[in-house]
Amino acid sequence: MGERVGFIGLGNMGAPIAANLIASGCDVSVYNRTASKADPLVEKGASRAGRPRDALVRGGVVFTMLAGDGAVEEIVSGEGFLDALGPGGVHVSMSTISPALARRLAAQHAQSGSAYVAAPVFGRPDAAAARKLWICVSGPAAAKERVRPLLTFLGQGLFEFGEEPAAAHVVKVAGNFLIAAAMEAMAEAFALSEKNGVAPERAADFFSQTIFACPIYKNYGGTIVARRFTPAGFRLPLGLKDVELALAASDETRVPMPVASLLRDRLLTALARGRQDLDWSALAIGAREDAGLS
Amino acid sequence: MGERVGFIGLGNMGAPIAANLIASGCDVSVYNRTASKADPLVEKGASRAGRPRDALVRGGVVFTMLAGDGAVEEIVSGEGFLDALGPGGVHVSMSTISPALARRLAAQHAQSGSAYVAAPVFGRPDAAAARKLWICVSGPAAAKERVRPLLTFLGQGLFEFGEEPAAAHVVKVAGNFLIAAAMEAMAEAFALSEKNGVAPERAADFFSQTIFACPIYKNYGGTIVARRFTPAGFRLPLGLKDVELALAASDETRVPMPVASLLRDRLLTALARGRQDLDWSALAIGAREDAGLS
Amino acid sequence: MGERVGFIGLGNMGAPIAANLIASGCDVSVYNRTASKADPLVEKGASRAGRPRDALVRGGVVFTMLAGDGAVEEIVSGEGFLDALGPGGVHVSMSTISPALARRLAAQHAQSGSAYVAAPVFGRPDAAAARKLWICVSGPAAAKERVRPLLTFLGQGLFEFGEEPAAAHVVKVAGNFLIAAAMEAMAEAFALSEKNGVAPERAADFFSQTIFACPIYKNYGGTIVARRFTPAGFRLPLGLKDVELALAASDETRVPMPVASLLRDRLLTALARGRQDLDWSALAIGAREDAGLS
Amino acid sequence: MGERVGFIGLGNMGAPIAANLIASGCDVSVYNRTASKADPLVEKGASRAGRPRDALVRGGVVFTMLAGDGAVEEIVSGEGFLDALGPGGVHVSMSTISPALARRLAAQHAQSGSAYVAAPVFGRPDAAAARKLWICVSGPAAAKERVRPLLTFLGQGLFEFGEEPAAAHVVKVAGNFLIAAAMEAMAEAFALSEKNGVAPERAADFFSQTIFACPIYKNYGGTIVARRFTPAGFRLPLGLKDVELALAASDETRVPMPVASLLRDRLLTALARGRQDLDWSALAIGAREDAGLS
Repeated sequence: MGERVGFIGLGNMGAPIAANLIASGCDVSVYNRTASKADPLVEKGASRAGRPRDALVRGGVVFTMLAGDGAVEEIVSGEGFLDALGPGGVHVSMSTISPALARRLAAQHAQSGSAYVAAPVFGRPDAAAARKLWICVSGPAAAKERVRPLLTFLGQGLFEFGEEPAAAHVVKVAGNFLIAAAMEAMAEAFALSEKNGVAPERAADFFSQTIFACPIYKNYGGTIVARRFTPAGFRLPLGLKDVELALAASDETRVPMPVASLLRDRLLTALARGRQDLDWSALAIGAREDAGLS
Repeated sequence: MGERVGFIGLGNMGAPIAANLIASGCDVSVYNRTASKADPLVEKGASRAGRPRDALVRGGVVFTMLAGDGAVEEIVSGEGFLDALGPGGVHVSMSTISPALARRLAAQHAQSGSAYVAAPVFGRPDAAAARKLWICVSGPAAAKERVRPLLTFLGQGLFEFGEEPAAAHVVKVAGNFLIAAAMEAMAEAFALSEKNGVAPERAADFFSQTIFACPIYKNYGGTIVARRFTPAGFRLPLGLKDVELALAASDETRVPMPVASLLRDRLLTALARGRQDLDWSALAIGAREDAGLS
Repeated sequence: MGERVGFIGLGNMGAPIAANLIASGCDVSVYNRTASKADPLVEKGASRAGRPRDALVRGGVVFTMLAGDGAVEEIVSGEGFLDALGPGGVHVSMSTISPALARRLAAQHAQSGSAYVAAPVFGRPDAAAARKLWICVSGPAAAKERVRPLLTFLGQGLFEFGEEPAAAHVVKVAGNFLIAAAMEAMAEAFALSEKNGVAPERAADFFSQTIFACPIYKNYGGTIVARRFTPAGFRLPLGLKDVELALAASDETRVPMPVASLLRDRLLTALARGRQDLDWSALAIGAREDAGLS
Repeated sequence: MGERVGFIGLGNMGAPIAANLIASGCDVSVYNRTASKADPLVEKGASRAGRPRDALVRGGVVFTMLAGDGAVEEIVSGEGFLDALGPGGVHVSMSTISPALARRLAAQHAQSGSAYVAAPVFGRPDAAAARKLWICVSGPAAAKERVRPLLTFLGQGLFEFGEEPAAAHVVKVAGNFLIAAAMEAMAEAFALSEKNGVAPERAADFFSQTIFACPIYKNYGGTIVARRFTPAGFRLPLGLKDVELALAASDETRVPMPVASLLRDRLLTALARGRQDLDWSALAIGAREDAGLS
């Protein structure tokens, strides 16, 4: 597609997405705090930026895919970022961040003449590599129009949530909450099954082929039943971070979320027991342990 | 299929299933406490039984589809039922009942030489009519073999859970728990979305087309967002009954289920507020009300 | 006081109460399923009844102090009990039972001309021995008047809850729920203190000398901090039974009780982990374990 | 006692405490953001400070009693505060703040040669006026020694929690959590009582005279039963703030607190329903509403 784009954040998710942008024909300039993570992309044709601002072209497009509120805020408020992006620039923000931060960032971008487009994604690293992401997008219409071909290339579906910059982030946060809730419910149902003489594999198969025949129940159901929590596709502390984002938004807007509260407690227990390197689906261990299953 | 079968319990679910048995070519004898409910089936060719035992043929097959533990126990322990079913008979028990009762009934049947086959179903009345039920089955192998053609005819899929009579009921109870858990999680996620400026319809559409593209999220998500809780496909007090079955089994086998506990409280609130005639998905009103959404 | 009274149920609580009745000057006839438990009381002057009904005097007073609904129902519906109690008799029911059973029993007594007086107690075995029980009482006025001197002798305070037979049992069930809730809250507060560098003993001392200067916080706070769960004053399965009584009443009358739900889950976890012989305050271990404290 | 002390924060709690310091013979310099709140104290002999730093004497003692983390941090990091307090000064911090902030502040004070003494209090405004506060204290020994006579004068009891600056704040946060937990448990117990035919007043009386004969159950029990939520002694949003402090500390130190989670949800519901001006005990309305009690 020939556009020059910057890409900041080359972790599990950012790296394959940046690679796909290169594959799409874009001229990609990449930045990562740990510089060595840029090497494989430079080999694929990316140019290496020494500072975040060096990845930007005035009036151009920059993607960020970072660990959370702190990292995104640090980059955007870092020296020269908004100036380098300049009037006409578009920041495609793919990280999972709080709606509150998104609102603040959108205002800052508007003030400097650039546009903040929220574009968080659903899918794990393998889906990112295979361009099978589901992408939620919200922000100014013209800016979204401009980056639509890129986003369309990166995923298997693009979903519009209007001009409110925080909207797509709200959906992302709500979605990760729904995933964690489904995992907890399965964990309880499987523990009940097992202690009542039904093999959890059988129950998981049945549900994921019938009334819950969808990716989350299939994939996480299988993971939970097999207790295959490593290697971590999405580490447990990140899962807690996302549930905390849901709770923070729920606080701000006065929305009691008892299931989210319960998930927070489950994830805290998992961390208190030393599971910080496991996949977040390891929250499911809690229901087993409470039931006395080893 | 030509077999003579009895059918006891002609409610929302039982009536369409019995009609399908007639359509399959079986010679069906029907019984219902409120006799008039049998009329449409008699018109379709069923014979009318004056008492439960009159629906049975010695050594034959009888289906029951009743409201819960109390009703099933009353029928089976009623005068002459086990005698009339006699040695070689098969009782296909489709009701949602407690695993504990199933174990007791199976023992009683075995003692009188007949077989208890658990065959609870997933699907609402329209699925029953359209032969789109998912059927879980457990019990003695020979008895299951005998009724397999009938069950295959009645549903879109038959799932085997072994010889333990309670197993299929455990799966049914766990499944209804999973459905209610998904509804509660959606209710919280949608309330969060709405109070953060995202139309819940949009969020529901997105989830049910992507990571949660499965019947439960599609159907109940739509219902919850549209607040279309009447007419009730499955009444709220029955939903509470099923969550209580999960909790009872969790008690007996020492399986803490915090999400089930939460669902119980939500359903109690709904009943305390007079929602006994709404569909059980009306448990979702709770999350809205707690968030101050009218 | 010279009255002839029967006493059925000589467990941890019943034995010291019966002993006090003997000490008060009553002529006491005792019955216990395991007959040897009556020996120490017979030595103190009680007469031994071979069957429950033998402990009764027509038109007299009988006390029961049993393990729960099942045991009380079995005694009362046992052969001859209501006949032997006869018109004018008074049954002082000290067990912790469901309000629903109390209503049923009261009706049965009324039908046979006797009176059912609910008189559940608060206090552990040492309080029973020391006549320091708190006694809640409800039932027919005349019957309560008749047994008031006895109850006054047995406790340090008698509290009136009207004529409704179930009322005092409701208060008992609500009270045990409040105790368990206080234990769980302390367990969480102490775990928080400990992991934030405050010795839980210090925190417990402070609270129980100031804003929570009352028996429950003092005694159970000390127990929890010292983790002194054996010997059991009140065994954990009995604690679960009482929380289940609260939940059963909450079900019947549509009163969501999320804290009670949480307590049930904690107690189930404790049982699933093999703590059936510990004091019910061992539910507090759960909060520690979830926090990764050994 | 003759010492010159500064006092910053003249709200519901600060004003009566400052007045008592004047009454004790101290020479008190007061500051409040809304200056008019200082008037009654000036009339009683205080001098008025135009800026926070003007209330300080180099090497002297300053008290702060403010709304929370934000307010305390703003004052301390405000221009000149630590300089004006100077080496040898003591900051007696009575506000309810996070342990994390206390640790940070203590380090800053130490760096500038002054001492941070945590001295949060339990008691409502009337207790503050009557010198009936319970005061928890932690921090450097010498500094505590210096202010001990003042603190002893202000309360009915002073409790030591060692040198760790955050310790007393941990106890305060844990204590407010325990109070809210007791209120929620009472709310559920009273709703159960009421719907089972027992007047909640009777139940509250019984508990607060016997097993829960302590200030929290007596006072808040009475408030909850009478539904006397205004005027607010401690406003509901402040209650939520304190529960959030407990949850934040629980997050940081990995201590799951399901009861705290539940309280947060109850308080959010109360705010979503417009109860921001009621006393925090109005969280108890939730249990009633869920039970369908008007």
